[in-house]
Amino acid sequence: MPRNQQIVLDNRPQGEAVASNFRLVAVETPALQDGEVLVRHHYLSLDPYMRGRMNESKSYAASQPLGEVMIGGTVGEVVESRNPKYAVGDKVVGMGGWQEYSVVDGNQPGALRKVDTTHVPLSHYLGAVGMPGVTAWYGLVKIIAPKAGDTVVVSAASGAVGSAFAALAKARGCRAVGIAGGAEKCRYAVEELGFDACIDYREHSDVKAMSKALKEACPNGIDGYFENVGGWIMDAVMLRMNAFSRIALCGMIAGYDGQPLPMANPALMLINRMKVEGFIVSEHMEVWPEALTELGTLVGSGKLRPRETIAQGIAAAPEAFLGLLKGKNFGKQLVRLV
Amino acid sequence: MPRNQQIVLDNRPQGEAVASNFRLVAVETPALQDGEVLVRHHYLSLDPYMRGRMNESKSYAASQPLGEVMIGGTVGEVVESRNPKYAVGDKVVGMGGWQEYSVVDGNQPGALRKVDTTHVPLSHYLGAVGMPGVTAWYGLVKIIAPKAGDTVVVSAASGAVGSAFAALAKARGCRAVGIAGGAEKCRYAVEELGFDACIDYREHSDVKAMSKALKEACPNGIDGYFENVGGWIMDAVMLRMNAFSRIALCGMIAGYDGQPLPMANPALMLINRMKVEGFIVSEHMEVWPEALTELGTLVGSGKLRPRETIAQGIAAAPEAFLGLLKGKNFGKQLVRLV
Repeated sequence: MPRNQQIVLDNRPQGEAVASNFRLVAVETPALQDGEVLVRHHYLSLDPYMRGRMNESKSYAASQPLGEVMIGGTVGEVVESRNPKYAVGDKVVGMGGWQEYSVVDGNQPGALRKVDTTHVPLSHYLGAVGMPGVTAWYGLVKIIAPKAGDTVVVSAASGAVGSAFAALAKARGCRAVGIAGGAEKCRYAVEELGFDACIDYREHSDVKAMSKALKEACPNGIDGYFENVGGWIMDAVMLRMNAFSRIALCGMIAGYDGQPLPMANPALMLINRMKVEGFIVSEHMEVWPEALTELGTLVGSGKLRPRETIAQGIAAAPEAFLGLLKGKNFGKQLVRLV
Repeated sequence: MPRNQQIVLDNRPQGEAVASNFRLVAVETPALQDGEVLVRHHYLSLDPYMRGRMNESKSYAASQPLGEVMIGGTVGEVVESRNPKYAVGDKVVGMGGWQEYSVVDGNQPGALRKVDTTHVPLSHYLGAVGMPGVTAWYGLVKIIAPKAGDTVVVSAASGAVGSAFAALAKARGCRAVGIAGGAEKCRYAVEELGFDACIDYREHSDVKAMSKALKEACPNGIDGYFENVGGWIMDAVMLRMNAFSRIALCGMIAGYDGQPLPMANPALMLINRMKVEGFIVSEHMEVWPEALTELGTLVGSGKLRPRETIAQGIAAAPEAFLGLLKGKNFGKQLVRLV
């Protein structure tokens, strides 16, 4: 039985999340029951939604229980199997959590998904060809539903969702404009990800300046917005939204002290007859096959070349996660566990 | 040629609208050209959207030009016709404006609509079986799209839109809860309009008190909300909205000084995966026939018995309109012009 290092949630954040909210423990992996498989994780995905799970307060998902392994997506390899559907050596995606190994009931629908690494690197199944990619796909295709020639904007443009958003939007003939923090990320968004323009919110750091920059980057206004951040950036984007435009709400940060951030001018939703819709991609499993097929094709053909920031070893996960929350990563944040 | 008294917009409001923004003038009605009809207005409709038209600033509709007759819906009778489609005595609905007579090109599509007053009183074509009724229909049926058993809430419940909303919601097996100002309006909403409950926002006059009252009136939470006012009432309703709930945005007042009113916690739209959609009913003419048929049937069968507040004479229109903006009317506000 291999030794399994895990990160558990030790205590809940008081305001900002800190490293001491987490605790590293080590356990023996248990013997497998019939139907179970043992997966050795190669990569752990770190994602902003995990911050919401750390709170006790009502969020769009259940709280992470104290003392239990942090929730998280993983890709890995079957190293032991008592399930005829899985063979040792199979590459699988699952929700293994912040740990080196997981024991999975292979008969539970959706618990594991076998993946093909011929054209798509294993790690990308946590990003462009995984949950973040499908998130971008759902928001763009199902909520924004753009037609060719529409201008679509995404915040956190250089991240995993933003990267996929750009490729999907360009494939539909849209003008794709990103918002990201820092000149380097903006250059990357335009030169590597295919955005037509990218606005640095550190350079344009208030509603008025951002709104002016958006006017230049979006001469025909904005038809669709994919919201990853909320707050003042959303206020600025709303000033440039066209009549009958759509906003897909995917992420909205709270204020520094955890208080809700207001929306400055909600009447714009009426004035411009906008549609604003919040969603969680895990509630729309019916679109995953179609979305993953398109995303896999975009990666396989080189039209979507997502960048990754990789921390090494499970003990590095908390610091890597806190960095992600501050935008220190560049592209998809992963932890390599092998 | 009869003498035609008119109300024109003389100057734009500085903050609150006042009577001196308007001016009463009298003109001769011109001789008819081929294809035209002369309509004598029996009733003028006063509606909150007119306040937005008085501003120069960007609104969801064009500004009302200074010195021209105020825009407004009217019902009346054809008194002279040079159009074979209209005979003297025909009852017609149109956008005749704040005046006693209008000359209408009868060949312009949608300019006039003949109505039958056998089962529906003429004035109701400006309310329950007119624009306000179709507004309630579109928001409820097309945006909220409730199923039987859903709880739906409307603000300004005792007004023309709210009255129709209640009848339409009850016809679909929903629990209908209103919000209105004052005990008398709330009693009327429950006893006459068929609301299951109505909350007095003067009694529950802050977010916390309103939210508590909503919890009692909506024990299963809120699945759909029809927004006529915005501001703190919307903030309170949002605290009680269920997962996957819908908000139809139809009216949102500004703050006292004309500044936008913020939305306190927009992240609730994400947390509860809500859909929020603004609309203007005149942009959805395709639904009018279906909506008017249902509304006419509800009125004809006595299931929708809307109340009216009627001012007498065109000179009384400005004060009646200012009263409407302050909620002094009870049900649909009209001006009788005969």
